[in-house]
Amino acid sequence: MIIRNPFITNLKAGYLFPEIARRRREFEAAHPGGARIISLGVGNTTEPILPHIDAGLKEGAARLGAAETYSGYQDEGLLTLRRRISEVFYKNQFDADEVFISDGAKCDIGRLQVLFGAGARIAVQDPSYPVYIDGSVLIGAAGNPTNEGYEGVAYLPCTAENGYFPDLSRIPENSLVYFCSPNNPTGAVASKTQLAELVAAAREKGCLIIFDAAYSEFIRDPKLPKTIFEIEGAETCAIEVNSLSKPAGFTGVRLSWNVVPKALKYAGGESVNADWARLSGTVFNGASNIAQAGAMAALDGEGLQEMRAMTDFYLENAHLIRESLSALNIPCVGGDNSPYIWARFEGRKSWDVFAAILEKCRVVTTPGAGFGPAGESFIRFSAFGHRTDIQEACRRLASLELV
Amino acid sequence: MIIRNPFITNLKAGYLFPEIARRRREFEAAHPGGARIISLGVGNTTEPILPHIDAGLKEGAARLGAAETYSGYQDEGLLTLRRRISEVFYKNQFDADEVFISDGAKCDIGRLQVLFGAGARIAVQDPSYPVYIDGSVLIGAAGNPTNEGYEGVAYLPCTAENGYFPDLSRIPENSLVYFCSPNNPTGAVASKTQLAELVAAAREKGCLIIFDAAYSEFIRDPKLPKTIFEIEGAETCAIEVNSLSKPAGFTGVRLSWNVVPKALKYAGGESVNADWARLSGTVFNGASNIAQAGAMAALDGEGLQEMRAMTDFYLENAHLIRESLSALNIPCVGGDNSPYIWARFEGRKSWDVFAAILEKCRVVTTPGAGFGPAGESFIRFSAFGHRTDIQEACRRLASLELV
Repeated sequence: MIIRNPFITNLKAGYLFPEIARRRREFEAAHPGGARIISLGVGNTTEPILPHIDAGLKEGAARLGAAETYSGYQDEGLLTLRRRISEVFYKNQFDADEVFISDGAKCDIGRLQVLFGAGARIAVQDPSYPVYIDGSVLIGAAGNPTNEGYEGVAYLPCTAENGYFPDLSRIPENSLVYFCSPNNPTGAVASKTQLAELVAAAREKGCLIIFDAAYSEFIRDPKLPKTIFEIEGAETCAIEVNSLSKPAGFTGVRLSWNVVPKALKYAGGESVNADWARLSGTVFNGASNIAQAGAMAALDGEGLQEMRAMTDFYLENAHLIRESLSALNIPCVGGDNSPYIWARFEGRKSWDVFAAILEKCRVVTTPGAGFGPAGESFIRFSAFGHRTDIQEACRRLASLELV
Repeated sequence: MIIRNPFITNLKAGYLFPEIARRRREFEAAHPGGARIISLGVGNTTEPILPHIDAGLKEGAARLGAAETYSGYQDEGLLTLRRRISEVFYKNQFDADEVFISDGAKCDIGRLQVLFGAGARIAVQDPSYPVYIDGSVLIGAAGNPTNEGYEGVAYLPCTAENGYFPDLSRIPENSLVYFCSPNNPTGAVASKTQLAELVAAAREKGCLIIFDAAYSEFIRDPKLPKTIFEIEGAETCAIEVNSLSKPAGFTGVRLSWNVVPKALKYAGGESVNADWARLSGTVFNGASNIAQAGAMAALDGEGLQEMRAMTDFYLENAHLIRESLSALNIPCVGGDNSPYIWARFEGRKSWDVFAAILEKCRVVTTPGAGFGPAGESFIRFSAFGHRTDIQEACRRLASLELV
């Protein structure tokens, strides 16, 4: 018989969000009746797609039903969309063949991990979004689990003490550095100076940054950088992934992109862009043409206004949550330029706090320990929810002693 | 700097279809003017999605724009769709959690390769669809290229002499066996007896079959099996992938599924299904909800009739191509229960025949050698095209001496 892939046996727990769903179901079974459970856990969008962007999706579906406008495989994506992304997000800094259209930032990261393979040394912000490490474990770029995390992974703690920006001297040479800003889960946003330091460190140490910008559209402070490519020289040391999931409500539509600059080279001088195109053509077949039509609508003037309104809505939710936590004297960050609030419960285990909030408030959150060792004693509150649910959750949180 | 993944350097050529596109562009640049080039090369659908199914897609887009019907992440897919697939294709043999909804059969195969990892020994029909081998090379399950193919891959020749069904005694023990029926590229369809032999061989040798059924809806002969799961015991040794790309015209929509039975175990007794769910949750985020709404429409009574009409149309194209080749006394198979015709040009190199047909007829085909060593001297003709293009291509082929 086929032997189980040893890398899978290294994964020490179920994927975080199914695990949370499992615990929620267990709690519900054990505590029937009572108030409806409200989720501030997984970052799943709740508000309908706004009319102009949704019209783009409907139009995309209609075009596939007509002989004159039918289209099949689009591989790396519609040329018009690739160009438009370069224009809207990167001031036309990139050619169309440096922008790849895809079906999700998480999916892209999984394929990028295959691209770089088991030999890549990796470094991650700690805490971080699970796919950076779990996906690396799956392909053998991270080793056995220990009490301090996985062997072979350089964890870069992002804590209250360092303002949630890591000590860059801890980045190993020639490593793949996963970096997310606005950060999931902490909600912290790196300043332009900080990103310039990151790029300088990467260039000095021969590292490649995989920059996850999936929450860039939540940035309101005009001084904060929305892409790593605002930093000069980043095109020689960084790949960026981004997505319409959160700003356009596309979690169920599936549309992302990644930028792999042609200036990016391996140690031997070979083009990373060419390998990425080869890999994408081999194991991927492109995003849905309907999603791409929706993306074209999202990136015109009216669509950009709708995305602004959508992110404003979730930011107002974040503001309400942060106010509630502040009223309880729970220290927290995030929520001003990001949809996540990162709350500290010093001296307590985050799965215990998760259980306490679920039991006392019937509110689901995400325990910080699920994002890495430095997440212990933190809870992530997600601002994705209907306004009435957020208000109700805030009322329940306010009336209870959590700390 | 980051070192290039050695597995990528093992890939000996560009992905087949971009390579064909490149040669076509070169030819066009060198021979401007002349008749319009017609493609019988890549298997890309050309006919618009039929009205009932397209209405499902439009409805799916509309539902995302309304508060009452909005949906976000669906992970392994809508429960109703997973159940409906089990009902339509597998006589309810599988529970919903054995059916995973995805964005493409090729994408699924790429992720399955990550699941089984570099340690898996692989066996493929020769010729075969490129992702089985190329994807295995990318993750290190296949080795260095040689003149006879990649090291570590068991090639199972499918030739005129063996009726395009391989000698099963050549399958190594404990291997992953990729098997495609109706076959791409040969168009051959395995009989129920042959599939029963395949399943028996897999069970005897401890192999796991990855069965690619992407062309099952082209089968017209009621005696031919449309799924590996028509064979008793296959649920203990097989995974099936299938897709709506070809029967529903969904190449640009992106909707596939795979069946990973719970009865399927590794040598150590662990569940393959559980690992697949874990891996999918980690590096994949599900198919578009719009595509899933279209799939629900495709799988009701009216939708199934439309898929029948669509596959009938392409089968008539295949019939026309096969008649043209027969009139030229070119031996060929396929095209009766599949959209591909596999034509033999004995004693000639297939890239030379590709070039000759392109030059003399201005028709693009696919050279058999691109599908593996046993494809040498063959050409694959794809029946995906507008009727008028197929008719014109047949006229051009008929008027020229190709052999």
